[in-house]
Amino acid sequence: MKNVVIGIDFGGTTIKFGVVTEEGKIIDKWVLSTPTQSDPKATMKKITSEIIEKVEGNYHLLGVGLGIPGSVDPLTFKVYDCNNLGWNEETDLIKYLKPVLKVPVIIENDANVAAIGERWQGAANKDNFMYVTLGTGVGAGIVLNNRLIKGSTGAAGELGHVIVKPDGLKCTCGHRGCLETVSSATGIVRLYKQFTNTNINITTKQIFDQAKNNSPIANKTINVACDYLGLAIANVVNVLNLQEIIIGGGVSNAGEFLRSKIEKSMNKYLYLSNQGITKVKLAILGNDAGIYGAAKLALNNKNITI
Amino acid sequence: MKNVVIGIDFGGTTIKFGVVTEEGKIIDKWVLSTPTQSDPKATMKKITSEIIEKVEGNYHLLGVGLGIPGSVDPLTFKVYDCNNLGWNEETDLIKYLKPVLKVPVIIENDANVAAIGERWQGAANKDNFMYVTLGTGVGAGIVLNNRLIKGSTGAAGELGHVIVKPDGLKCTCGHRGCLETVSSATGIVRLYKQFTNTNINITTKQIFDQAKNNSPIANKTINVACDYLGLAIANVVNVLNLQEIIIGGGVSNAGEFLRSKIEKSMNKYLYLSNQGITKVKLAILGNDAGIYGAAKLALNNKNITI
Repeated sequence: MKNVVIGIDFGGTTIKFGVVTEEGKIIDKWVLSTPTQSDPKATMKKITSEIIEKVEGNYHLLGVGLGIPGSVDPLTFKVYDCNNLGWNEETDLIKYLKPVLKVPVIIENDANVAAIGERWQGAANKDNFMYVTLGTGVGAGIVLNNRLIKGSTGAAGELGHVIVKPDGLKCTCGHRGCLETVSSATGIVRLYKQFTNTNINITTKQIFDQAKNNSPIANKTINVACDYLGLAIANVVNVLNLQEIIIGGGVSNAGEFLRSKIEKSMNKYLYLSNQGITKVKLAILGNDAGIYGAAKLALNNKNITI
Repeated sequence: MKNVVIGIDFGGTTIKFGVVTEEGKIIDKWVLSTPTQSDPKATMKKITSEIIEKVEGNYHLLGVGLGIPGSVDPLTFKVYDCNNLGWNEETDLIKYLKPVLKVPVIIENDANVAAIGERWQGAANKDNFMYVTLGTGVGAGIVLNNRLIKGSTGAAGELGHVIVKPDGLKCTCGHRGCLETVSSATGIVRLYKQFTNTNINITTKQIFDQAKNNSPIANKTINVACDYLGLAIANVVNVLNLQEIIIGGGVSNAGEFLRSKIEKSMNKYLYLSNQGITKVKLAILGNDAGIYGAAKLALNNKNITI
């Protein structure tokens, strides 16, 4: 039987599973709806039975990696801040998974997992980079010297709450002017409504489409969102001397139109020693980044060097 | 003969030497004026003869560490951006030092070296922290998972060029609103002149003394400088989930008055997951931080785990 790992991208809406070879090929994948119940134990039971059903008699399972929308304590590996899943308490998921699966299980924040996926099989070609996910919010996974940066309590990468305008719009976190108030999918819609002085029902994609068709107000919206994003990214690059920024998440579907604007804004704010060195690139793994990254973490097993 | 290393803090004004034991004790130290000539080779010859004269017949020299006001290429170990020394080209200092000294030689940026010094024998007690030096400019050394962050080209830690006010004062780097335009020693004087609408001849120390004596305009100056510093630090902490910020450099002589203002401003901008976790502390090694840090690097020899 073939050696494989299973990479899981556990989101607020769906749970994506992938059977991945040691060489980095997804040879099977499937999706479940995320259970609406907020009981981690029952959800983990569902996940283990899905895995066992898939691998039994078919594959030799080496390990399981799980990306979650929350933080992971780097010492206890318990998860917390999983607000999108409706989990209000610190939870030991490994306790529910490992005894049943009988293989090593690795859990990591979803943006961190996507960063590792893009480094393994995607757009990230350098040892010092930041993966930025632009979706409902803004998140990031940072890799330095080819090692994932987890932070002292596993909460590194809160790029969405970098403050770009201290007197700016109110954020869900309580502060004003956080990056995600202006540069996330919801932030872009919010800016558009502000600039049109309306409460129009519009999507981020529609705003991008209008901007690409030269609508002045849509262009202004996207330019402002990209300017703040370029500023926040440049400030991180100035401090960490990164080589690449990889843009992923739903908003990144706007493609080269978005990428070039972010790179231009970033360069405007970059300190000289980084200008021309740091590149902005689009992520290429789409919805599979989480599966690849979780699989790679499972292959590495607790060794977080990519 | 006792095993020792020599730690050197090479600044624009002085070169400080320390003979340091393996246990971290400075048992001898001395200072030279930095030669005004801009010839690295002649200066390195002076440094090697100083070292040989000191150790010959007295100590068993294990290695030499050198902190410099510039960047060090992490691959070639050549130094560049040493503008304060009047060196305009990338320079291989190790070539001048190692064959003469016949021991391993380590070269590192001065803020990075001070960070390591404070971690070894000073105020930094955590594995994830940033050392911030407030002097003529603003610099930083960052340690994550107890490893020094050098960046892709050795230029990590440019906290002074993090942009805190895109439409702000012009910086020497060409951008507007860099942190060091408002929170360095020169920035604080500049703010004071702006607020008093004068071109008065005053030092940062005098402004702090006036602020401590409740001068409204001096207090406003310090509060604004600390607010921008708190914002820039909070944004780094939000991204890196740091446990400690260590404040060093000449401006840090303002002591607890300064520290408490920076911590208060930082907390104002910190994302919830870092509030109450990240502490601001004053550096405690003063002018010896560079000697300790360079010595520790020499002891570790190319192994940059502290």
